[in-house]
Amino acid sequence: MAIVLTEGTIVTASDCYQADLRIDNGRIAAIGVDIVRPGDEIINVGGCFIFPGGIDPHTHFDLSVGFTRTADDFASGTAAAAAGGTTTIIDFATQDKGGSLRDALSEWHKKADGNSFVDYGFHLAICDLRPSVVAEMDEVIGQGVSSFKFYMAYKDILQVEDGVLLAAMKAAKNNNGLICLHCENGDVIASLVKESIAGGKSAPRYHSVTRPAILECEAVNRALCLARLAQIPLYIVHVSSADALEVIERAKAKGLPVYAETGTQYLLLDEACYQSDDLTAAKFVMSPPLRSAEDKEALWRGLRNGMLSTIASDHCSFNLAGQKDLGINDFSKIPNGAPGVEDRFGLMYSYGVATGLLTLNEFVAVCSTNAAKIFGLYPFKGTIAVGSDADIVVWDPQVKRTITAQDQVQRVDYNAYEGFAQQGSARFVFLRGKLIAESGRLSAGMPTGQYIKRNIFRGG
Amino acid sequence: MAIVLTEGTIVTASDCYQADLRIDNGRIAAIGVDIVRPGDEIINVGGCFIFPGGIDPHTHFDLSVGFTRTADDFASGTAAAAAGGTTTIIDFATQDKGGSLRDALSEWHKKADGNSFVDYGFHLAICDLRPSVVAEMDEVIGQGVSSFKFYMAYKDILQVEDGVLLAAMKAAKNNNGLICLHCENGDVIASLVKESIAGGKSAPRYHSVTRPAILECEAVNRALCLARLAQIPLYIVHVSSADALEVIERAKAKGLPVYAETGTQYLLLDEACYQSDDLTAAKFVMSPPLRSAEDKEALWRGLRNGMLSTIASDHCSFNLAGQKDLGINDFSKIPNGAPGVEDRFGLMYSYGVATGLLTLNEFVAVCSTNAAKIFGLYPFKGTIAVGSDADIVVWDPQVKRTITAQDQVQRVDYNAYEGFAQQGSARFVFLRGKLIAESGRLSAGMPTGQYIKRNIFRGG
Amino acid sequence: MAIVLTEGTIVTASDCYQADLRIDNGRIAAIGVDIVRPGDEIINVGGCFIFPGGIDPHTHFDLSVGFTRTADDFASGTAAAAAGGTTTIIDFATQDKGGSLRDALSEWHKKADGNSFVDYGFHLAICDLRPSVVAEMDEVIGQGVSSFKFYMAYKDILQVEDGVLLAAMKAAKNNNGLICLHCENGDVIASLVKESIAGGKSAPRYHSVTRPAILECEAVNRALCLARLAQIPLYIVHVSSADALEVIERAKAKGLPVYAETGTQYLLLDEACYQSDDLTAAKFVMSPPLRSAEDKEALWRGLRNGMLSTIASDHCSFNLAGQKDLGINDFSKIPNGAPGVEDRFGLMYSYGVATGLLTLNEFVAVCSTNAAKIFGLYPFKGTIAVGSDADIVVWDPQVKRTITAQDQVQRVDYNAYEGFAQQGSARFVFLRGKLIAESGRLSAGMPTGQYIKRNIFRGG
Amino acid sequence: MAIVLTEGTIVTASDCYQADLRIDNGRIAAIGVDIVRPGDEIINVGGCFIFPGGIDPHTHFDLSVGFTRTADDFASGTAAAAAGGTTTIIDFATQDKGGSLRDALSEWHKKADGNSFVDYGFHLAICDLRPSVVAEMDEVIGQGVSSFKFYMAYKDILQVEDGVLLAAMKAAKNNNGLICLHCENGDVIASLVKESIAGGKSAPRYHSVTRPAILECEAVNRALCLARLAQIPLYIVHVSSADALEVIERAKAKGLPVYAETGTQYLLLDEACYQSDDLTAAKFVMSPPLRSAEDKEALWRGLRNGMLSTIASDHCSFNLAGQKDLGINDFSKIPNGAPGVEDRFGLMYSYGVATGLLTLNEFVAVCSTNAAKIFGLYPFKGTIAVGSDADIVVWDPQVKRTITAQDQVQRVDYNAYEGFAQQGSARFVFLRGKLIAESGRLSAGMPTGQYIKRNIFRGG
Repeated sequence: MAIVLTEGTIVTASDCYQADLRIDNGRIAAIGVDIVRPGDEIINVGGCFIFPGGIDPHTHFDLSVGFTRTADDFASGTAAAAAGGTTTIIDFATQDKGGSLRDALSEWHKKADGNSFVDYGFHLAICDLRPSVVAEMDEVIGQGVSSFKFYMAYKDILQVEDGVLLAAMKAAKNNNGLICLHCENGDVIASLVKESIAGGKSAPRYHSVTRPAILECEAVNRALCLARLAQIPLYIVHVSSADALEVIERAKAKGLPVYAETGTQYLLLDEACYQSDDLTAAKFVMSPPLRSAEDKEALWRGLRNGMLSTIASDHCSFNLAGQKDLGINDFSKIPNGAPGVEDRFGLMYSYGVATGLLTLNEFVAVCSTNAAKIFGLYPFKGTIAVGSDADIVVWDPQVKRTITAQDQVQRVDYNAYEGFAQQGSARFVFLRGKLIAESGRLSAGMPTGQYIKRNIFRGG
Repeated sequence: MAIVLTEGTIVTASDCYQADLRIDNGRIAAIGVDIVRPGDEIINVGGCFIFPGGIDPHTHFDLSVGFTRTADDFASGTAAAAAGGTTTIIDFATQDKGGSLRDALSEWHKKADGNSFVDYGFHLAICDLRPSVVAEMDEVIGQGVSSFKFYMAYKDILQVEDGVLLAAMKAAKNNNGLICLHCENGDVIASLVKESIAGGKSAPRYHSVTRPAILECEAVNRALCLARLAQIPLYIVHVSSADALEVIERAKAKGLPVYAETGTQYLLLDEACYQSDDLTAAKFVMSPPLRSAEDKEALWRGLRNGMLSTIASDHCSFNLAGQKDLGINDFSKIPNGAPGVEDRFGLMYSYGVATGLLTLNEFVAVCSTNAAKIFGLYPFKGTIAVGSDADIVVWDPQVKRTITAQDQVQRVDYNAYEGFAQQGSARFVFLRGKLIAESGRLSAGMPTGQYIKRNIFRGG
Repeated sequence: MAIVLTEGTIVTASDCYQADLRIDNGRIAAIGVDIVRPGDEIINVGGCFIFPGGIDPHTHFDLSVGFTRTADDFASGTAAAAAGGTTTIIDFATQDKGGSLRDALSEWHKKADGNSFVDYGFHLAICDLRPSVVAEMDEVIGQGVSSFKFYMAYKDILQVEDGVLLAAMKAAKNNNGLICLHCENGDVIASLVKESIAGGKSAPRYHSVTRPAILECEAVNRALCLARLAQIPLYIVHVSSADALEVIERAKAKGLPVYAETGTQYLLLDEACYQSDDLTAAKFVMSPPLRSAEDKEALWRGLRNGMLSTIASDHCSFNLAGQKDLGINDFSKIPNGAPGVEDRFGLMYSYGVATGLLTLNEFVAVCSTNAAKIFGLYPFKGTIAVGSDADIVVWDPQVKRTITAQDQVQRVDYNAYEGFAQQGSARFVFLRGKLIAESGRLSAGMPTGQYIKRNIFRGG
Repeated sequence: MAIVLTEGTIVTASDCYQADLRIDNGRIAAIGVDIVRPGDEIINVGGCFIFPGGIDPHTHFDLSVGFTRTADDFASGTAAAAAGGTTTIIDFATQDKGGSLRDALSEWHKKADGNSFVDYGFHLAICDLRPSVVAEMDEVIGQGVSSFKFYMAYKDILQVEDGVLLAAMKAAKNNNGLICLHCENGDVIASLVKESIAGGKSAPRYHSVTRPAILECEAVNRALCLARLAQIPLYIVHVSSADALEVIERAKAKGLPVYAETGTQYLLLDEACYQSDDLTAAKFVMSPPLRSAEDKEALWRGLRNGMLSTIASDHCSFNLAGQKDLGINDFSKIPNGAPGVEDRFGLMYSYGVATGLLTLNEFVAVCSTNAAKIFGLYPFKGTIAVGSDADIVVWDPQVKRTITAQDQVQRVDYNAYEGFAQQGSARFVFLRGKLIAESGRLSAGMPTGQYIKRNIFRGG
């Protein structure tokens, strides 16, 4: 049976207009006036926006970090995503040292398949690029994994050296994989961390001090030099500072194909969060760390003028009790990361659109469309267009709520945005035409999310 | 009777997908699969793109320049526009010195009303900003003229001094009119022209020598300083040089709301056109003049990374015989301007999309959508969306033709792009649902273009 | 009779070393150890620095501004200069509208000749560049006036339009005169002033509000564009803001021969001086006005990295009583300018060298040597070298004093630096070997300053 | 017995004037007119310039590179320096992996002491910064070694990683040693070299291809980020490219204390030298390699506007026969480096001063004074001032000669500047008052060069 949403305001990355929208067989079948047919279910959504479902291009669900494992797995994480208005996530299947990409991919399918409430794809995070692994890159692209992430940070764990990075880029030049980079100078950070702890500065808040913005800026510059050498496009994950953004702007002005992501945390929180000496600061131990108020402003400016393409949550949740608190006396032992997948969409609407900083179109672009295009999901995902998957958020802009851990769907014992006001709410969330969430609560009984084989990058 | 275009590929500034499109009562009534109703006329447009009709935000039809008048009036000019795929133009109603805005507007209505084959709006070009004229600005905004152009060039004719410009900007701050600027340093140009002619350098090609790019760059910088002081958005017409563009990029990076236009001539032609000593150079006597090959490249880069928002023709045609030739011995007597309204759309497709420099979405954005948004025409114009005017170009990408004056619709005795290959062609052009042109020829018998009252600028 | 200064530390723009210095016949005859001859007068200056006499390249003595005349004439102004350690000044002979350069020069000679306690040269400030005046430029260069100043501000009084400025630059290209520019956008300032007063904002402090830094920055950029067009070097007087400096830095990075001056007032005072609503603010009514604390910092940085070449006083003094107070109810009637010639040298030592911001060499360079080289006084003036004029300041770095109007030599009823501590003091000041000042007081009975015919600019 | 040079033109970094100069007891005793005393030896140097002896801050004499040793040792290298007008060199004592700084310094003293024809100092090149080595840094500073070099290139040999570099910088922050850096990204270069050779691109000219300028630019940026973090001044050796220079300019504009060196090779030679496939290219195998003609131009511009402080030879000579030819089939086996110490001074005069690109003062600054100040040799070295060592070059600007290996003093079988015309020649070279070279030939019988204990850096 088809569904017709009537009287809503449809918003895409470029348009905004009132029309009825007919969903049939999981896809958008028609948009127009007077398109209801006999037997259609009619849902009046007057006064609401019809947005394409959110796409979160950066999550870490069910990830082991050695001594512990993320609080959210695919079930809880994607339930939270759905509740908040996100209908597709891309998670990082992560290679083990010495391991194969094949195994990593297979492991991630085990974690996700059958457990996900939203559709999902995978990036492959590579930490050990042996020649055989280069060959595997082609193979996994064939399986719909068209992007590869490398780390310039996390020395001795995930970090690869510059020569390896260049080799990866050259491989990507051939196989059309998109290289994604975590840009921080891991060597220097390791040295600063060691020195800080040796000097007795080991409380959680020193995490931030040992990862200054200049080390992100440096790494972004280095990454862009390598990409220019290899002549490839580049996607930079979680840009957090004004200086790093400036390097990206200069590269774009020269015509280099670089795409940058930031996150709600860098737009809405800042280093003031680290000012306590207790475990509170540990909530915000993530990499890169939160920056200054000026950095926040610069990132909003970067969103508005198109220098930043996407908003990710970098959801990587750990409980305060039993996980974050492992590092109360030694910040280097605090598992890095924070929750965010549930609130990303609503926060961007509240602090972007409702404040007037972003247009509705820009909101849709950075929360959904751009990620779909960059990561090969478009036109199935990322827009409201005839033929696209009916991944739809019916957003009621009048509802007000307050974000709090008590109410949340994600399975972690705090919320990084505790007490933040949210303007508007996802009245209905459809995944391929099926209602999966309502008024901020999961309504799907069973996980029906599917794995999405992504196409290769064809320009953002 | 409704029309359904079937099997075409619909392109907007952000989307691209195959669907049928139903036109009813001059508007887009539905987009979808299976939307035909009994009695609908069906036109199969398989293999074609369905673009929003082109919008040319910068034309000069039926304009007197004192000693002569443009070759094209509204009838011939808009017929040419229609033939080429442009369904809306915005012409410059130009105040006389000592005259009122009211009179200028009334004069332009006389020229256009009943004579135009496409829809049209007016900017008001102001050269004499007396206090009473400031008051009139509010009045004409009420009549749908929401943008005002000032000239920093054309000394003693149209040019206003910086203090007046600031006053205009402050008025615009109050009445929400959008200030448009022609940026060249007219004082210095006047001095260079005088010196050049006094020194015997009076052949047409010296037009270009006396208007170096640095004087555009200077004026753009000055304009942006004034706009920053007045805290208003700014639209810069016909940006022609890399240096000027760089100034704009720096301003955008700082978050200033500046929008820039360029033209097909600056993207496709260059100073090599001035190399003869005969009348050939006079064809390209326009202001700003054509620039270097490096400038061309920079402008394409600026289009791709969003620094340039719109493509205009700056159509201002004069015949070689009897008009341009008036200045064969004194370039300062050559009427400035060239034709372009007919070929703008097709040239941008051919040299932008077909070459791979622009995506289909970017093409639509710069040829139509962005102008519609900046100049208050959206959402009636500038997109393919339900409820919008059915201003539609059905573009057949397979057709090849060669541009030549012999074939042209515009009423001028040369074509600036003579011999250029065009890839693709407008198979059908609809204006509010009526077919007005077919296969590059006007098919409308009578002019049905309407005056469009434009809304005020609400952000690009 | 020769004089030998023994045991002093000689400082030039590049060197610093202890040696004896022998003055004979008004010139430096020898520097070395063991150079005393029978009959020499020996002055032990152990513990002191031997600096080249200060050069102030920007003063206005005995200047009529229409309704009033500067408080200092050549006698009092140069007495103050001498007392403070400045042995050469360059004053602005200023053309009357309709008048000739010849007459201006002759008038200035009348003012200065026989009345000056220090050596002096003239720039010619041109406000009316008729063709006959262009011819006169060559003539006055022959008389030792090798630099010409133009104003981009002071509309309807001194301001010239851009076309005239370019003509002046082209003349300078031929006659090797150095163009000096006052860079502020006079048209816009006139408009802001009018609006401010019309709006009742007429207290002295609004002077500053109506001359925002962006209008200086704009004019500097315009000036540099014109200079690039004319291919000439350029000297920009009294740079006061970070933004203007940034434009200069960019030009220098491209290799353009631009030289910039700033003044003690812009380095030591800021807009906080305008915070009162009474006459206090009038003390600091000068153009450009004092800027922000951030601008001050940027200027110090510019001095240190060589972006700023010279320090001037722009001494142009008016009494509070009877002159500045003419504008208590209308800031546009306050004569512009402030005193500074007496304290420039000592302030730069105190707040530059003694604080560690400048090296001794940098201090000498910006207070003396650079001006000498740029303005054709070198090697007679501006250094401590054999053969140079014995214009010498013996500086005792241990003395401390407080600057106050009560003690001052200059003939004006306030001091802009009232209460500032000065570190060090000019124990002896020699002009061509004659002692003219001692311990901050004039000791010369008669004015012995000579007119200096300056050479043309040969690179800074 | 004292010597008086009469009628010469004395040139320092800021002055230029004619005077006699008296040398007594190895020092400059007096400068003046009429300073000859009975018994003085008089040498008329009319028509000649009296320059401070050249200082070459970057040489590698008697250096083992594992499989071979530089062609020049201290005897031949310093004889060449003296012949060309260089009276002080600073060589790189280089730590062995696992070795101590003490041992390196002691080894270098063995090589140099008693064998050097000019005065010499040492930098310490550190490749293995164990905690004990950090402690040794303080110790060697006490022995006059006040600068430390680190390599960001030469992977697995000399290269240190970023964390170590930061540790070195922090040590320097405490002990006031000046950090000198070789900036190229060694990891990436190693990867490119391996790939190039694996791909059969192993001829000498591929050396250049595998070390693109962007990898220098990247490393300079990284180095500056680290220096900013550590808050130390930085000296960057042999800057060779426009892009690297631009990074330095941006840092200087922000007020960072960074000093940059370039070399004659980068100013006078370019990548055209690599165009043959034979051994010719091997002559120019050095790191960084020669760059483009545009890079050369940018470096000259950087010299003129003070962005580059010093000119070094980076003399590191290997014979073509028996050394360079070891790598004829594998460029990675060619010992890196080229001769230059002999011709540096004369080339800079010829292609800097004689062409008008540099003033005489700038020439002295970059060839002598700046290095003396940066490296703690001033005021004993680097200037013509009373009390300074009488290290003097009497330069006859009229002599013309052609540079050729046949005539050279340095002990290597080619000259990188073969066939270059030299304008002017060192008629006499004095070291501490003793004549050591005449007309381009060594005249000293015995090496009399002394080790110079250098002071710590106190600002350039």
